[in-house]
Amino acid sequence: MKEFYLKRAEENLPELIHERVTPDVGALLLQKGESAVIDLGNHYVGYFSFRMNWVEKYVDAPIRLRIRFCEEERELCDDYSTYHGTLNASWLQEEVIHVDFPEELRMPRRYAARFIKITVELSNRPFELTDFCFDAVTSGDVSALPQLKIADPELARIDAVAVNTLKNCMQRVFEDGPKRDRRLWLGDLRLEALTNYVTFGNNALLRRCLYLFAAATDAETGFIVSHIFDYPQVVNGRWILEDYSIFFAAALCDYFAATGDRETFSELYGAAKSQLDIVHLTLREDGTVEARGKCDVFIDWCAGDLKKNAALNGVYLYTLEKFADTLRSLGHPDAEIYEERLGKGRAAARSAFYSEEKNAVVSARDGYQHSVHATVWMILGGVIEGESAAAALEAAIAAPDSLKPGTPYMHHYVLEALMKLGRKERAREYLKDFWGAMVARGADTFYEAFVKDDPDFSPYGDRRINSLCHAWSCTPAYFIRKYFID
Amino acid sequence: MKEFYLKRAEENLPELIHERVTPDVGALLLQKGESAVIDLGNHYVGYFSFRMNWVEKYVDAPIRLRIRFCEEERELCDDYSTYHGTLNASWLQEEVIHVDFPEELRMPRRYAARFIKITVELSNRPFELTDFCFDAVTSGDVSALPQLKIADPELARIDAVAVNTLKNCMQRVFEDGPKRDRRLWLGDLRLEALTNYVTFGNNALLRRCLYLFAAATDAETGFIVSHIFDYPQVVNGRWILEDYSIFFAAALCDYFAATGDRETFSELYGAAKSQLDIVHLTLREDGTVEARGKCDVFIDWCAGDLKKNAALNGVYLYTLEKFADTLRSLGHPDAEIYEERLGKGRAAARSAFYSEEKNAVVSARDGYQHSVHATVWMILGGVIEGESAAAALEAAIAAPDSLKPGTPYMHHYVLEALMKLGRKERAREYLKDFWGAMVARGADTFYEAFVKDDPDFSPYGDRRINSLCHAWSCTPAYFIRKYFID
Repeated sequence: MKEFYLKRAEENLPELIHERVTPDVGALLLQKGESAVIDLGNHYVGYFSFRMNWVEKYVDAPIRLRIRFCEEERELCDDYSTYHGTLNASWLQEEVIHVDFPEELRMPRRYAARFIKITVELSNRPFELTDFCFDAVTSGDVSALPQLKIADPELARIDAVAVNTLKNCMQRVFEDGPKRDRRLWLGDLRLEALTNYVTFGNNALLRRCLYLFAAATDAETGFIVSHIFDYPQVVNGRWILEDYSIFFAAALCDYFAATGDRETFSELYGAAKSQLDIVHLTLREDGTVEARGKCDVFIDWCAGDLKKNAALNGVYLYTLEKFADTLRSLGHPDAEIYEERLGKGRAAARSAFYSEEKNAVVSARDGYQHSVHATVWMILGGVIEGESAAAALEAAIAAPDSLKPGTPYMHHYVLEALMKLGRKERAREYLKDFWGAMVARGADTFYEAFVKDDPDFSPYGDRRINSLCHAWSCTPAYFIRKYFID
Repeated sequence: MKEFYLKRAEENLPELIHERVTPDVGALLLQKGESAVIDLGNHYVGYFSFRMNWVEKYVDAPIRLRIRFCEEERELCDDYSTYHGTLNASWLQEEVIHVDFPEELRMPRRYAARFIKITVELSNRPFELTDFCFDAVTSGDVSALPQLKIADPELARIDAVAVNTLKNCMQRVFEDGPKRDRRLWLGDLRLEALTNYVTFGNNALLRRCLYLFAAATDAETGFIVSHIFDYPQVVNGRWILEDYSIFFAAALCDYFAATGDRETFSELYGAAKSQLDIVHLTLREDGTVEARGKCDVFIDWCAGDLKKNAALNGVYLYTLEKFADTLRSLGHPDAEIYEERLGKGRAAARSAFYSEEKNAVVSARDGYQHSVHATVWMILGGVIEGESAAAALEAAIAAPDSLKPGTPYMHHYVLEALMKLGRKERAREYLKDFWGAMVARGADTFYEAFVKDDPDFSPYGDRRINSLCHAWSCTPAYFIRKYFID
């Protein structure tokens, strides 16, 4: 099967679309110690080239240039020598090159940038830089975007930034963040897919990613791994995040709902079904899910030691419902099996994680922890609902000591929960509050991690390594286009 | 005329000969903090490539490599951050690159090196480097070298190093020093030419260089400039060194003597003649030469403030003699004119610069300065001769307070003077003493500057910028092949 899945993935490899971005700067006359900033006018992913000319008849020594690619303006002035993050400094987008002769220079690597700073570290003579060009690449076809009018200008701007985020992450796969992580992550894919259906509609790219994951099963557990590398060869990233594995089934159901493509659904059905069946086979005696052995759980990064049991059960139930509904709509005889599991699972989860007395979710079996996460996922899993669920969610959001979402990825599910509870205006306000704050900072793309009151927040101990264009942040366009176009 | 000369130069542009040097190292397994040294086994000029493979399925972050190209072994350990020389640090042969994926890497610039050091500055995983290849380039065809047996093993080794020096400087022109100076210098060309005739015999390259200089005349003085750049376009280097301008005529006579090529001699005769005629027209009243106005004089770099008047007169007379002899051998009616000037010039120089009483050369009109330079050039100019000249030269060499040669270029003319005086054994000893000391240090090519007792000597205040393969050092092969093969 693996070979078959990989063949299908290869068949759906997209052609990249190139756009020549030529910033409106003429020839720059530079000499030693000077620097220049090229503003591309927007965030792009691609390849940078320029031409060096001599203005005198010769330059007499190689010219040493330091070239830095920045996703936001403040990075232009950062001192990289003091970098102290947990990720490798080689992700910082900066090169030093020597140029011997006037020539057309094309930097060999791909960068994610809006601003490019060129500093002349050494030169004996002034020289000229000209013909700046950023060869931007994406597999998201802007001409395929639905033409629509978003009346609220703030939402219109948020939508544009979200679409740009997705576009720049759409390459050979849906990349995590093109500055630093070209991997395809399964949980993230699900969100990118939702946004893709209402924007670029590149369903071939979706198929490619789904087939790649179908081919990346962990031999021991049967779970699909959390992430893969697709270049230079497809590599199974090994690490299992059980919530991500489960989401494969949700992502396939979403795909079928968006495209009606029964052939793909049918080819990937077994892989999706397996994820849910493995969870079912490994349920605890009380009927709830627990990640065991080599399986980790993601849910979110956030401050504090998040207990993930309740949320994991929510992910399972949420996906089970989608899966059962899809089978039911197809008249599939197995629908009943999953409906029955869903009913029992909800009851078990309610009994294990919900405190009627407090109207709150007990997110861990071994003690009470108040978190937005557990609450959101009990709502999305259909364990709690209606007014009491809405009250529980607002309480979790408002409580000073509750754990809050740390990533745009988790914020997405808060919005989904609010929409599920019918609280559309609250959802719109939440969206504007979180993603709008990035726009207010001047974001051209949405970030990997964002904490409104802490612009230096980083999951890696140093914000200079953060990715400022991260696919899992793109879902405002999904909500806006699906719900908020009046 | 300029267009004609440049057309001729272009017609004689050599095809570079490529040699794939594949050092005998297998695959190197490296990780962060480690480094490896590739020994090419000899000094070469060219392009470096290698392949990076991953040993694990992925590497997870770009790999940052620092790659240093060293002409001699001790450069491997130099700390370039403390460089303080007068020339631009961008000549230090070191690059930092980031590698995202397994690939064949070809460094885009040309380097001069025997040793290549690769340091892994950043990497999350071990990886493999393999397929090291140095694509060496030269316009010196090793297969064209005369096969000969040099009995003295020390001379044989010196000859080999000298030939390698010339080979690595033979590119599109005779380069000064391929690490750092790709210019063609006129005085240096004359020495490279002498060695070329007895080694590679690339007479087309010689013609190319002579035509390039013929095209590079200073409009104001009529002198040929001291150096030119030939790439990316031919650029007249503007600076005039009057001794170098005069040497154009000597170099053309040498060329004719070596090749018998009357067509080239005839086409360049006017340019050569002009150099001597301009000197003649600007003689002082006492009949001696003096560089005036924008004209400088080279002769040598050496410690102390060398007075160059006597030496400059020697260069003129030396060239005048070659020129007159060549015209005489051709039965050219102008021979007489130059013979007459030679006779008068020698008398004038003797009267101006020679002290019978001291049997020494007075190298400046404004006072006595004892230098090897002035003495050598009075000998080569035919102003002093025989035993007294030999005694004067040995005295200048031995005197503790005399100015001594600082460059291999000037040492060449000491040797020429010794040979002219018939002191062949003394010349052999002198050659072994100076160039042999570089060989003893492990030189694969002869240096730009070398002071036996001061291995850190540099004309630029920092030996790390010195060129260790410098064309003007190649003439031992000329002397050995012409005189010392018994």
